[in-house]
Amino acid sequence: MDFNESTALNAVLDSFDGAADPRTKEILLAVARHLHALVRDLRPTLHEWEQAIAFLTAVGHKCDDTRQEFVLLSDVLGISMLVETMNADPAGTEGTVLGPFHMVESPARENGDSIDLLGTGTPCLVSGTVTDTTGNPIADAEIDVWQCDEHGFYDVQQPGVQPPGNGRGLFRADDQGRFWFRTVVPSHYPIPTDGPVGRLLSAAGRHPYRPAHVHFIADAPGYRPVTTHIFVADSPYLDSDAVFAVRKNLIVDFTADGPDAAAPYRRACFDIRLAEEATTR
Amino acid sequence: MDFNESTALNAVLDSFDGAADPRTKEILLAVARHLHALVRDLRPTLHEWEQAIAFLTAVGHKCDDTRQEFVLLSDVLGISMLVETMNADPAGTEGTVLGPFHMVESPARENGDSIDLLGTGTPCLVSGTVTDTTGNPIADAEIDVWQCDEHGFYDVQQPGVQPPGNGRGLFRADDQGRFWFRTVVPSHYPIPTDGPVGRLLSAAGRHPYRPAHVHFIADAPGYRPVTTHIFVADSPYLDSDAVFAVRKNLIVDFTADGPDAAAPYRRACFDIRLAEEATTR
Ligand SMILES: [Fe+2]
Ligand SMILES: [Fe+2]
Repeated sequence: MDFNESTALNAVLDSFDGAADPRTKEILLAVARHLHALVRDLRPTLHEWEQAIAFLTAVGHKCDDTRQEFVLLSDVLGISMLVETMNADPAGTEGTVLGPFHMVESPARENGDSIDLLGTGTPCLVSGTVTDTTGNPIADAEIDVWQCDEHGFYDVQQPGVQPPGNGRGLFRADDQGRFWFRTVVPSHYPIPTDGPVGRLLSAAGRHPYRPAHVHFIADAPGYRPVTTHIFVADSPYLDSDAVFAVRKNLIVDFTADGPDAAAPYRRACFDIRLAEEATTR
Repeated sequence: MDFNESTALNAVLDSFDGAADPRTKEILLAVARHLHALVRDLRPTLHEWEQAIAFLTAVGHKCDDTRQEFVLLSDVLGISMLVETMNADPAGTEGTVLGPFHMVESPARENGDSIDLLGTGTPCLVSGTVTDTTGNPIADAEIDVWQCDEHGFYDVQQPGVQPPGNGRGLFRADDQGRFWFRTVVPSHYPIPTDGPVGRLLSAAGRHPYRPAHVHFIADAPGYRPVTTHIFVADSPYLDSDAVFAVRKNLIVDFTADGPDAAAPYRRACFDIRLAEEATTR
């Protein structure tokens, strides 16, 4: 059989007949099918194909221990969020993207501790309760949080400026499922734009900003972990997050009702619902 | 609008509204559409998504000045061949993939010269005529050829072993469009398997071999260049080329009818038809 536009796809699909693992085979078949459909739709010139190869190569070369440009690419195309959505348990708190800044372990902290080691932002208390899907508190649930500072930078982005662990904490809920910690109100920030994904955004006429948020991973034995954020309700870019991660239910008021009415002090509440592992689809 | 499985794609498509260049926009829309369709088909787990990110990152990290793993990936998925097919002028000689071994310039040689600098393989004379689509010879057409040796290695793969330029030559047709050069019969060979594409092939149960071939790029002012191969008619793997590049019309007998009947000597004829630039689709 000769390779031409109409036989091309079948020739490639047939080549995967011998794949030992059925899921691997399913993935290879689907990848070939959709990539061929993409190429048949676009009819790229050889120069465009070379540009695509060069783009993917540049994305790969930008990846290192502290930068994951393919995750960023997946993020800005809405793929990360789609995968997250598909894998979230509908009975639990809505999930959102993990993002690229959870590369270091969060330091263990006690309820009431501050994750802010700088003291320059607007102070804030975040608290909530971890429950199961019927509202029963989950004692000792683990809550991993990380966020940027009031200028939009994570500690790992400013090694000489921020102490390691700034904006990060690993908390354990009390016997009534409650957690609380002090921090500063995070800022909106741009995703890194000094690589090929930044060039893609600018070619697409898109801004690189994410609305202000605090990252969470909540987990407990016997439950499905939830990876999510809370978004600061008055942040810019809530309706144009560069990585499509905003969900209405995750937008939280950071209210100015702190204990000291004279001081600028804010407070955010976020209860987290974990689905039982057995309810996995 | 909330991001969920049914709104996800439109949110991403809308984000490209501001793309300045219409073709860029068309590409971004098609990429998003087909990637989202792929993800919806496969419903990857978060672990599978991480594996996909890790695979693409490994492909990127394998690319350097002398190795293009993304081209290899495109090749083994039949994408390179599909793009080549779409861009070939149907009036000219059939095209096939460029392949990854044309990274160095071919040394200029005279008709009759040998591109074989080793003298250890089966000698062979390759000759042909470059014509336009009506059969008129194209004087001074340029013919760039490159091939592996009788063990399946290109010069660039064996820097200490083969002299640079072995198996390569840039020829110029005479005033009747004719070219001829001496060489050795090339061998089938495996594409590089020490990277992520090699792991993909082995997961797919596929062998990495390409049937024996000689690469050609023929060109002349006013004509569309043709990138192609001739395949050795009695080579193994003609019906399972790892990169899907074989076409019936490119399979050429390397006949044993050399001038000296006693010596092992072969001869291959390959006429090349170039389409006029004006016939570009
Ligand atoms: Fe973030
Ligand atoms: Fe080759």
